[in-house]
Amino acid sequence: MTLEPLLTLIEISAIVAFAISGLIEAVRKRMDVIGVFSVAFVTAFGGGALRDVLLDRRPLFWVQHQEYVWLVLVLTLIGLPLLRVLRHRWVNRVMEVTDALGLGLFAISGASLALAAGMPLIIVALMGVITGVFGGVMRDVLCNEIPMVFHDHRPYALCAFAGCWVFIGLNFIGAEAWLALLIGAGITAGLRLLALALDWRIPSWPHQIED
Amino acid sequence: MTLEPLLTLIEISAIVAFAISGLIEAVRKRMDVIGVFSVAFVTAFGGGALRDVLLDRRPLFWVQHQEYVWLVLVLTLIGLPLLRVLRHRWVNRVMEVTDALGLGLFAISGASLALAAGMPLIIVALMGVITGVFGGVMRDVLCNEIPMVFHDHRPYALCAFAGCWVFIGLNFIGAEAWLALLIGAGITAGLRLLALALDWRIPSWPHQIED
Amino acid sequence: MTLEPLLTLIEISAIVAFAISGLIEAVRKRMDVIGVFSVAFVTAFGGGALRDVLLDRRPLFWVQHQEYVWLVLVLTLIGLPLLRVLRHRWVNRVMEVTDALGLGLFAISGASLALAAGMPLIIVALMGVITGVFGGVMRDVLCNEIPMVFHDHRPYALCAFAGCWVFIGLNFIGAEAWLALLIGAGITAGLRLLALALDWRIPSWPHQIED
Repeated sequence: MTLEPLLTLIEISAIVAFAISGLIEAVRKRMDVIGVFSVAFVTAFGGGALRDVLLDRRPLFWVQHQEYVWLVLVLTLIGLPLLRVLRHRWVNRVMEVTDALGLGLFAISGASLALAAGMPLIIVALMGVITGVFGGVMRDVLCNEIPMVFHDHRPYALCAFAGCWVFIGLNFIGAEAWLALLIGAGITAGLRLLALALDWRIPSWPHQIED
Repeated sequence: MTLEPLLTLIEISAIVAFAISGLIEAVRKRMDVIGVFSVAFVTAFGGGALRDVLLDRRPLFWVQHQEYVWLVLVLTLIGLPLLRVLRHRWVNRVMEVTDALGLGLFAISGASLALAAGMPLIIVALMGVITGVFGGVMRDVLCNEIPMVFHDHRPYALCAFAGCWVFIGLNFIGAEAWLALLIGAGITAGLRLLALALDWRIPSWPHQIED
Repeated sequence: MTLEPLLTLIEISAIVAFAISGLIEAVRKRMDVIGVFSVAFVTAFGGGALRDVLLDRRPLFWVQHQEYVWLVLVLTLIGLPLLRVLRHRWVNRVMEVTDALGLGLFAISGASLALAAGMPLIIVALMGVITGVFGGVMRDVLCNEIPMVFHDHRPYALCAFAGCWVFIGLNFIGAEAWLALLIGAGITAGLRLLALALDWRIPSWPHQIED
């Protein structure tokens, strides 16, 4: 019960962080205000919407929380001064932290729903990863780029994957739901921040395929 | 009751206009006949299909109306002489009008279904816009372009958004369903045509973000 | 009953062939291991997942068959030596055959489900084609390319379309389910291999549209 407000706070921060990453990429692509809003919207809610469609859950996450839709709408409108602020280095750092927390929260929420639906464990972990990263994938597709999560060689999906397995393990040994969620999301976020801080790289493939 | 044939006529015109816009972009990209049909098909039915999936409605719009699928199939096959005709200026004008009417009709149909499902008003308006514009978004994604509706700085989604709010307002004051639909769609189409005639532009973002 | 193991074998071969085509394109795009797995996964399961969402079937194909998910995961990890092997000419030939068989099997499975759902025949055929080809379409969209099936002028979707109509015809004259499936899939695969062997081309559009 005392956990609820904390989760809501993380959720809001995550949506803001995700939406801003969409906003930045859309502005870079010289989109108009409609495009900026659309890409911000899809980045923030795309992963959760895909999860809900795959699990056949309705109403969708963003239909249930219209306040979050308003939030992204307002963000788009006040984005310009906000982006000016964003040039400061410490804001980037804050963005990284909220994005990592958001990744953790979204991933574990997806895994948690899949687990409750009685799915096989590998599917539970995958559903968590999909929920966490596919907003960003859709953002990059709409911006006509190869999804960054697929080729920047930084651990991102992998952190969510690891966090989901920790969450699954905690459930297996009978941990309480809120504790499993908190630890799973925390490990995801922690791994992500550690990966950024220590500059971890995902092993690359030797590129021996010619066209 | 006397309204039904009129709506069907608008719907058919809209599908033709949407399909032709897909056909033109696919031919520009030098696709083969399969690609041309596929892109025309997705442009015409993508927005409605996404709406139906998001609202969990089955059968899908185009499954229920197989005659429309045949229509797009025939259009693809007779598209070549048709495209020759399209070089005339007045055909472009007719296309603009049918496309605007289609945008209006599809947007209000989406808003109307979301309203009937008891969704919050901002979601109703968004669902209308999604229904109206996402066929075009999918067309551009399949053609490996940034969606035109996001970056051409012409009001399109915005017209649908305005029309949906008018539709919502009319419902709120208790207007009859067909009247609200007709006025909402008419305002959307009218705004779109006005925007084209008067060369309105969506405010652009100052591009101060460097890569 | 004796058919079951054969179908499972074809299904596994098809998933491997589809996954490898995704893997190859992802490596060409210099993606990291996460990207390679994701694209392989989407190529193998995207068409079936889209079919299930459009027909509102749950659990999804790959949720029901977690062993196939593990298969793609392992494929990604052992892909490097595998790709070295793939340089041999005969492996390409084997890939073409399994891909053709996979196209046939997936297409007819999609058509069969749509037929059982009582859909109009044109929709049944389309649903078959979508199931067979949209994994590849998603692969190309994620790799930021125009879908190959839309513009390489080789019959692929068309073979599936023809095979689906044969399947529908066989059902119409009361053939047994397994026989219709086998012949439909066989004709699809046969046409595809014939098209490759004889270098058939899909008629191209004269490109008379200027930007």
